[in-house]
Parts: sequence; C-alpha cells; structure tokens
Amino acid sequence: MLQATLASGHADRPCVFEAFTRRLPEGRRYGVVAGTGRFLEALAEFTFGTEEIDFLRERTIVDEATLDYLASYRFTGDIWGYAEGECYFPGSPLMIVESTFAEGVVLETLALSILNHDSAIAAAASRMTATAGDRPCIEMGSRRTHERSAVAAARAAYIAGFDSTSNLEAGRSFDIPTRGTAAHSFTLLHDSEREAFASQLSSLGLSTTLLVDTYDVTGAVTLAVELAGPELGGVRLDSGDLVSQAHEVREQLDSLGATDTRIVVTSDLDEHAIAALQAAPVDAYGVGTRVVTGSGHPAAGMVYKLVARADADGTMVGVAKASKDKSSMGGRKFALRRRNSTGVAHEELIGIGSAPVDDGDDRPLLVQLVRGGEVIVPTDARSAREHHANSRAELPTKALRLSHGDPALRTVYQDEQSRTEVEED
Amino acid sequence: MLQATLASGHADRPCVFEAFTRRLPEGRRYGVVAGTGRFLEALAEFTFGTEEIDFLRERTIVDEATLDYLASYRFTGDIWGYAEGECYFPGSPLMIVESTFAEGVVLETLALSILNHDSAIAAAASRMTATAGDRPCIEMGSRRTHERSAVAAARAAYIAGFDSTSNLEAGRSFDIPTRGTAAHSFTLLHDSEREAFASQLSSLGLSTTLLVDTYDVTGAVTLAVELAGPELGGVRLDSGDLVSQAHEVREQLDSLGATDTRIVVTSDLDEHAIAALQAAPVDAYGVGTRVVTGSGHPAAGMVYKLVARADADGTMVGVAKASKDKSSMGGRKFALRRRNSTGVAHEELIGIGSAPVDDGDDRPLLVQLVRGGEVIVPTDARSAREHHANSRAELPTKALRLSHGDPALRTVYQDEQSRTEVEED
Repeated sequence: MLQATLASGHADRPCVFEAFTRRLPEGRRYGVVAGTGRFLEALAEFTFGTEEIDFLRERTIVDEATLDYLASYRFTGDIWGYAEGECYFPGSPLMIVESTFAEGVVLETLALSILNHDSAIAAAASRMTATAGDRPCIEMGSRRTHERSAVAAARAAYIAGFDSTSNLEAGRSFDIPTRGTAAHSFTLLHDSEREAFASQLSSLGLSTTLLVDTYDVTGAVTLAVELAGPELGGVRLDSGDLVSQAHEVREQLDSLGATDTRIVVTSDLDEHAIAALQAAPVDAYGVGTRVVTGSGHPAAGMVYKLVARADADGTMVGVAKASKDKSSMGGRKFALRRRNSTGVAHEELIGIGSAPVDDGDDRPLLVQLVRGGEVIVPTDARSAREHHANSRAELPTKALRLSHGDPALRTVYQDEQSRTEVEED
Repeated sequence: MLQATLASGHADRPCVFEAFTRRLPEGRRYGVVAGTGRFLEALAEFTFGTEEIDFLRERTIVDEATLDYLASYRFTGDIWGYAEGECYFPGSPLMIVESTFAEGVVLETLALSILNHDSAIAAAASRMTATAGDRPCIEMGSRRTHERSAVAAARAAYIAGFDSTSNLEAGRSFDIPTRGTAAHSFTLLHDSEREAFASQLSSLGLSTTLLVDTYDVTGAVTLAVELAGPELGGVRLDSGDLVSQAHEVREQLDSLGATDTRIVVTSDLDEHAIAALQAAPVDAYGVGTRVVTGSGHPAAGMVYKLVARADADGTMVGVAKASKDKSSMGGRKFALRRRNSTGVAHEELIGIGSAPVDDGDDRPLLVQLVRGGEVIVPTDARSAREHHANSRAELPTKALRLSHGDPALRTVYQDEQSRTEVEED
C-alpha cells in the first residue's frame, strides 16, 4: 500500500483513521480501553532501523523509494483517543489518527496489536474486580501467555482494578505493586511439609502466605498455625471445592485463634468463580489464565479504518466501505458520554463531523494524545487505573451484571448535516 | 522460594522439573509442541541485569543473598524435551529440566510462557492446515494479539504448516516467507476503485492480489480483469458469504478468461470455516484472529512440576502432590511413541524412572536439548515445521477430525518398579 501510494502521489493525502469495535464480545456490557500508554510510548520510538530496512531490501519486499520513506519515518500527525481506562461501547471512536495516509497506515498494526490485546485483558479484569468488590484480585497469569504479553497483561489488569501482580518485570516496567507466592515444588523439595513451612516462615516472616493443599489441607493448616502462631499472614488454597474448603479452613483457623490469618484462593478463577466465592470467607483472589486470556475473549475486536481523506481539491470527505456485514461509518468522529443529572451515564453520543453539544451533565470522551508527533498526555498505569474506576462508577448498575446482555449504553450517531440522530442497525 | 531455599540450604538439591499438560483443550485430539526453539534462544540470554537487581533491592523483594545468586545466575543443567513440532497427548513429558532446585525453579515462567503460548497457536494452526490440505494458509493475525506475541504466533503457525505470514518482523526474525495484502483503506484513499486498482497494478505488477469487496464485488472483479487482463494474480474476498461468493467470482473470472487468477479468502476464518470452504473454488486462506488466539484455546495448559529431587542422602526420589483434581505423577519420565508395523502411531508410552523398550517400530520422543547449560540442537522454525509434518503424518486418521473427541492416542504409564502398565484416571 505504501509503495503504490508513494508511486501514485497519494501517500501525502491528509487522512483520518479511526480505531473502533463494531460490537462488544458476545454478552459483554462494556469494554475498557487499555494499552494507550504503551502505544504512546512505543510511538515515540517507532522508527525503522538498518536491520529492518536491509531485510526489506534483501527480500525485495518494497522498492527503494519506499525504503527511503521508511528509513526516515517519524509520525508527525495528531492523535486523539478515549483516555486509557475509559469504558467504551460499539462504535465508540477509541482512537483517531490525523496524518498523511502514509504516516497513518504504517501505524495500524502497532496501534491495533497493543489496543486489542490490552483492552481484552482490561475488559475481563474489570468484570472480575467489579465482582470481587473490596477483596483484592492478584494477577498471576504470566505462565499462561506469551512472555511479553504477560508483562502487558499485568499492566492492563492493574488498570482495571487488580491490586497487584506476580510479574516482577511488570512491577519494574510499569511501577505496579507485586506479590509473590510459593508453589507446590517448594513444599515437595523439602523432606516434609513441616520443614518447608519452617523454611518459608524463617526466611519471609510470619506475614507470609503458606500453600496448604500439597498433601492434606486440614493437617497443613494445623501445622501452619503450630509453626507460625496466630500471627500467620495467610494460607492459600489452590484445588478442590474452594467454596466449601474456604468455610472449613476459616472455621479451623478461627478455632486455632488465627482469626486474622487471611485465606487466598487460586485455581482457574474467573469472574463467575469469583461471584460464587463472594459468599465464602475468602480474603483475596489470585487469578491466572482467565485474566491474561481475556476470559474467553482474547482480542478486543478493534479495527482501524480510513474514515476521511482529502479530495483532489483538498476538501476532507468522509469515506466508508460497503462490504457486507462489515460496513463502516465515514467521517471524523467526536464523542460525548450522556449523563443524567445524578451523574449516571445513559448514552454514547457520537458526532460525525462535529462535536455533539454537552447538555450540562455530559462528559466529552476524546482527549488529544499526540500533537505534531509529540505525546502530550501521561502514559502511566496509575492514572489510567483511576480513570477506569471513575468511568466504571458512572455506568448504570446493569453494566456490572455478569449475565449475557446488551451493551449498557446505546450508541447514537449525530450527523453533522442533518443534526438528526441516526441509530445503526 | 529461592530466598527461603538459599537460606535453608536446599537450593542446591538436584531436582527434576517436568512440563506437561493434564489434558488437551476440550475435544482436541492432539497437541503440538512449539516454542522450544524460542525458549532455547531465550535461555542462552537468560540472566538478571543491573536494572532488574536494583529493582528487586529497592522494593526489598528479596534479600542480598538472593540478589547475589540472581546476579550471577546462569543455567548450567540439562534439558530434555519433545522436539519442536512434535504432536503430544495428556501426560506427555514435554520438557524435563535436570538441575539444582534454584536453577530450575527460576526457569518456570520463561519456559511455560513460551511453550503455553506457542503451542496453543501451533495446535490451532495444525488443525487449519490439516483441513486446508494443499491450499496454502497465510497467517494474518498480527493486529489481533500483543505486538510481540504476533511475531511468535507467525512462527508457531509456520511450524504447524502455514505457508507464510503477513508479519514482516517474523520474516526477519525467523526466516519465514511473508505475503502482503492491500486493505480497504487503500481503495478508499483513491478517488475511485479504478484509480486504486490501477495504482496497485502499476506499482506491484499484474501478479498482485486485488481486494474486491470495498463496494460491489461483481463490479470490482470486472474492473480488475479489465485493468490487469487474464494475468491478474488474485482477488481477495473479505466479507459476506464466502462460499457462494467464491463460486460466483470463480465463474465470473473464468468467463472473463482469467482462469488462472487465484481467489484468496479472509474474514474470521478458523478450521471449521476452512472445512466449509474446501468444497468452494478457493485457492488460499488468510487466517487472522482465530489462529493467533489458538482458536478458542489461547493457552496450552502446560504446568511445570517438581517430579523428583535428591533425598538427604543424595538418592533421587520421585515426588508428587496430592491436591484434589490436580495430583501429579512423580518420577523422571521417558517417552516412546508406539507405532504399528505400518508406521501408524497407536499409543503414548511413558516410562517412569527408566525408558520403555522400543519394540522395533516405535519412536523415542525425548531429545536432549541442553547439556551443561549449552543448547545442543537447532532452534530454527524450518526444522520444526518438517518435524511437525512427519509427526502428524504418523497419527491415526481420526486425529485429524475436527469434531470433538478424545485424544487420538491413549497415554500409558510404565512403572519402573512394577513394570506393569498403569493408566491414569
């Protein structure tokens, strides 16, 4: 595409690209934008080095004019988008790239890879933290996803309200709280469970969490309190029927005087398992596979489409494809979250060509992220986490139901010309 | 774990860790080991740098003795495993790490992240290529997964028989064939479809593939042949009912004399969609989301367990946990693929403590990958691709059915002591 447009002269046409989703994953009631900060940090370093250029030349993938263009590539345009952590709905204009065709088209894979992955994790994680309420969720899924996805997944989960991660590299890269845990191999390495527990308590102190299901849970809990006393920080359950076990272990701990010892549960947890455990005496959830793989929906389904471009005379015109089942809506978008007077959101209003008017209680959703190629917003996970908490809090309560349902807000388009509201099929 | 065992003195105990899966994803008939080459390349560079050590110190995550250990960490043990590309079954000992506890426990996340991700992609990709037969599958899913997973996914898909990838970085990193495609944005950028096609043909030549569903397929196909003549390389369909469209477009192309023009289809393909399209005149499949997300199973479910360790007197003993639903089988494993006299595999025979005896037609499955910390096997994708083709070819035909079913081979354990065959529940 780049080579052909550089040759035809259209590469420099001013364009508007938009990232959006046609629909939420089946039954989900809201999505969560995540990855924006990572994308902006990647954008700042997004160039083509000698090795990449040499490879393209050796394989004769593109011509010399295209190699020259890539060798000096820097994004110099503007980017707008939903703030990281924002909740979104079908059609929400999640990222808007205003640049030449060439500059914008080259960003597609970078933008979509990061947003599709991180938003999928954040959406799943948000359902888990909303269900867990005040009980902390710990991200422990590093071993169930690609080694670099794992680091990004920890960040996305944190944005969506997870308390901490077991991924130390995520702690280092993104300043996220970290929590460790002991595995069964630790117990099995020792000649006895007694020796293993003693070793862990001696090295990590009484506030540590002991894994009690390697052999027999009741025996292990007795042993744990015998060795640590009532100051024992916690015990972890990783198998069996967690609901009934949590009740039994809580009773046992209390009867041994260890009333402040926490119970941490792990073992294929997802939002539904957490919902079932909310009635049990559990203090924290360790979530692995299901959060890092998006709880059944590992990609957010975002696409990146050309929605407007300059005409031969320089006028910007909306463009859209007519492909069956995959039609797009042309034009530069603007977006407003309609809220009622008590601050509860009830509509995603998208203006085509111009911004919809705030009726006083509404909240504009597009933030300028990049101006003339320079990133102009914070990219840290902590700000995004706060933004997500606020955004989720203003959704109607039905948004937090785990049962399959429609998007919590309806998306309404407002056309520039007609000023009438048009609803998509 | 590392800190406590360094303090207790058990960190140096000789150990055997094993990576395996308890079960295949629901209904799947075989798994495919992938990522071994990437793991071995990562292992060669797996050390803890100043930034990592400083982070651990600042956060007081571990003590100084542990930091010292990590700062000089190098894996010096032995690793055995199934060759990359090998088909596997529940309980197959996919990777066996023989080292001190400390050296082996530190590798867990690296090994599992890579193997769980890449094997999930390869297993899904293998079902697709087996179904597609002689028709090439092109990996096009980069935008639907994390930006680095995308590169690894292209490699895993290639190992499982994909023809090529649209991910240029995978082409560069892993020497995989690459194929490009034009998007709707390319057509929409131009003032007309005619201008867009002319631009692409002029720059890329007549052998290029034109995307014909931006506006109207029939009109676009007419235009494509008008501009390119019967030498046109291909057309791509990306929406609508692909089966009926492929028939219509084939007829149209043939009637226009473009009998050699290929039809490439894309649009949420997976192994089932490919199966449905096999009866249609399609020449190549472009597969995106479903291959890079493992077609419903984005993680292979491998775990990494301590299965043997030295006793106080230095004797190696098998160890296993008793956790409900998650019990493990202790002891160092060996593995043989039992084949009948015509070379068809019929059993996965796993020896505990010693190697099962080859009855003449069988194939030993464990290959030494690392000796004394040094990688001693090739790590390239091409060798693994060839190995996979051979391994899959010897499975019974039922292995290639797409319907839900049991693993194609039953797993049988042969105990060292009893020499009797024991079957797991």
